[in-house]
Amino acid sequence: MSGPAHPTIATATFTDRLGRAADAAAAAGLDALLIGVGPDLRYLTGYEAMPLERLTMLVVVPGEGSIIVVPRLEAAAAAAGLRPTVRIVTWDETDDPYELAVRHIGLPPMREPAVAVSDTLWASHLLRLQGVLGSTARITVASTVLRELRMIKDADEIALLTRAAHAADRVVAQVAAGRLIGRTEADVAREVRERLIAEGHEAAQFAIVGSGPNSASPHHVASERVIQAGEPIVLDIGGTLGGYGSDITRTLWVTGGDPDKGPDERFRHLYGVLQSAQAAATRAVRPGIACEAVDGAARRPIDGEGYAEQFFHRTGHGIGLEGHEDPYLVSGNDLPLAAGMAFSVEPGIYLAGTYGARIEDIVVCGSDGPIVLNEAARELYVVDG
Amino acid sequence: MSGPAHPTIATATFTDRLGRAADAAAAAGLDALLIGVGPDLRYLTGYEAMPLERLTMLVVVPGEGSIIVVPRLEAAAAAAGLRPTVRIVTWDETDDPYELAVRHIGLPPMREPAVAVSDTLWASHLLRLQGVLGSTARITVASTVLRELRMIKDADEIALLTRAAHAADRVVAQVAAGRLIGRTEADVAREVRERLIAEGHEAAQFAIVGSGPNSASPHHVASERVIQAGEPIVLDIGGTLGGYGSDITRTLWVTGGDPDKGPDERFRHLYGVLQSAQAAATRAVRPGIACEAVDGAARRPIDGEGYAEQFFHRTGHGIGLEGHEDPYLVSGNDLPLAAGMAFSVEPGIYLAGTYGARIEDIVVCGSDGPIVLNEAARELYVVDG
Repeated sequence: MSGPAHPTIATATFTDRLGRAADAAAAAGLDALLIGVGPDLRYLTGYEAMPLERLTMLVVVPGEGSIIVVPRLEAAAAAAGLRPTVRIVTWDETDDPYELAVRHIGLPPMREPAVAVSDTLWASHLLRLQGVLGSTARITVASTVLRELRMIKDADEIALLTRAAHAADRVVAQVAAGRLIGRTEADVAREVRERLIAEGHEAAQFAIVGSGPNSASPHHVASERVIQAGEPIVLDIGGTLGGYGSDITRTLWVTGGDPDKGPDERFRHLYGVLQSAQAAATRAVRPGIACEAVDGAARRPIDGEGYAEQFFHRTGHGIGLEGHEDPYLVSGNDLPLAAGMAFSVEPGIYLAGTYGARIEDIVVCGSDGPIVLNEAARELYVVDG
Repeated sequence: MSGPAHPTIATATFTDRLGRAADAAAAAGLDALLIGVGPDLRYLTGYEAMPLERLTMLVVVPGEGSIIVVPRLEAAAAAAGLRPTVRIVTWDETDDPYELAVRHIGLPPMREPAVAVSDTLWASHLLRLQGVLGSTARITVASTVLRELRMIKDADEIALLTRAAHAADRVVAQVAAGRLIGRTEADVAREVRERLIAEGHEAAQFAIVGSGPNSASPHHVASERVIQAGEPIVLDIGGTLGGYGSDITRTLWVTGGDPDKGPDERFRHLYGVLQSAQAAATRAVRPGIACEAVDGAARRPIDGEGYAEQFFHRTGHGIGLEGHEDPYLVSGNDLPLAAGMAFSVEPGIYLAGTYGARIEDIVVCGSDGPIVLNEAARELYVVDG
């Protein structure tokens, strides 16, 4: 049951990323980047560990070598997982790892330290760090400097995103072809998770199965509701494959084979509007266009049909080592897209209490326009179920 | 493929927890608990969501009703998921949710706020909150007040932990009975994850498969190393079932059916010492004994045989809605055990570069002694593989 190996990222790439992160930190006037377990650590070093109460922290000091503070019982795991050269400093169960991390920054006396911490660092760690750094420390999130690096995916990263997208495509096709009516949303969600793993994902982070009126709740949690003939299902699923995220949404309508239980006129109209909006936003993708302009491109056809209030979330989010990351396609974000950025394009229309629909693809900004990674059909899936 | 429903926790239980949390916050002199997505939120309200960049925050103000700030697109999901009565305050994509959360605390002017935030709240959220609360705010982690509640499991929680433990037991038996030699650790880890899901887990958070010399790395990340006859495998696996964690470690020795490739004398001795240590620590469990004394009970037999330096991690960690939580069985922790506490008992002995072993069970402190949830045999699993 050994699956195909994922594309691997070269050690030189990690060394380069770490060097560029240090340069970016210096340019931002930071004394150090303090990176806990999570996507930033994986991006910079390849090292993947579980976020836990024991501190693991990469300390990047511009002009100095980087160290990583790790619990002694994870020293061997870190040595095996770290790709670039990073000195490992271990701590024992009764040591203070926060002191160890801050000591490496080597601040001159009387200087107020300026550091950036990884965005997903736990409060329990940050508060302890703040205790050691002192109340005058200036602390920001590391995304302020790492965003520019992480947003632009290289060929290896796009290969991984593509592989993840195609695996999710296959799961959508499998679920749409199977029995749905009479099952609970939670049961279908379990099937989705199993299939994502079987298709090569190492983790299946979410499986939104919103049936009937639940299709109008964008982040619905799959429930014990039993799926019935004559209603839509919003299927929004994803996980990680080789560390990189998949995220696809398709909308189904289950008829039970009864021609009288197909989608009603209103739903067909709504879905047509949605499909135009999703296509328009995708077509708008090109280097230089502002994120908010892509959001606007999705919104215009929807607003024009009177559904403005029924599309109440942003059009998309970046994707990579995190399921949601920069860039965000949202009103107010004037960041221009650049070649290599990867993000979802996912407008939705939701009629509260009745039903809703969403279409979502992962799209890469190519040098000449959009590259759509998902290949599953974007039409409404009218199926027997 | 619908599995058996998990035991459910009554709404009255959540209402009670929320009330006790507010009381504990008041007793600690706190103006509010600020609880983001994660185990504390699930414990207090039953609401489960993904930790993301959009803020979801329960604001518990002693003497006032609780509110929860949620992104508008998750309002319906929150309404469906929240078990006790909590007023939902939604925010739109361009609002400032941190202002909304802090405003509810209703601080009198000129008062320095004292709040506690959930331990796993992301730094990106905490720094924004600190910006609104001001630099004079006293901020602690919520575990300082929630620990006392969450450590003592009630009957429903123990039922869920037991169900999770038994599912993990079955996976150990299945993997030990299957083919191992010639496969990579990563491939076996994938099998473990699939089996944990198939046995009812909703997520398979970890699958440590440490073969040969990798068995000496306690938190080894399953690698491309190919398992060979005549070596041990440390299998440390777990996930969540009904929200509650499983976590079991068993050590195997694969012979390939060759009588000359069984465990050597040194390993048999090491394993015997380890088994005595794990049994001694388990036997020590009873209300009133200090956590560090249970750690000491595991350490004595190991130290006595000269392996003190080769057992370099604590004896155990609490388990519940989190894989690692209070109480920690570690030197220096004089917290007395109390009936209803649940934790791992997991000594290990690791000979760097050669091999190692660990035995781990989940144990509940009963009113009269230990209740061991795992039922898988604790002997060395000598298998053909």
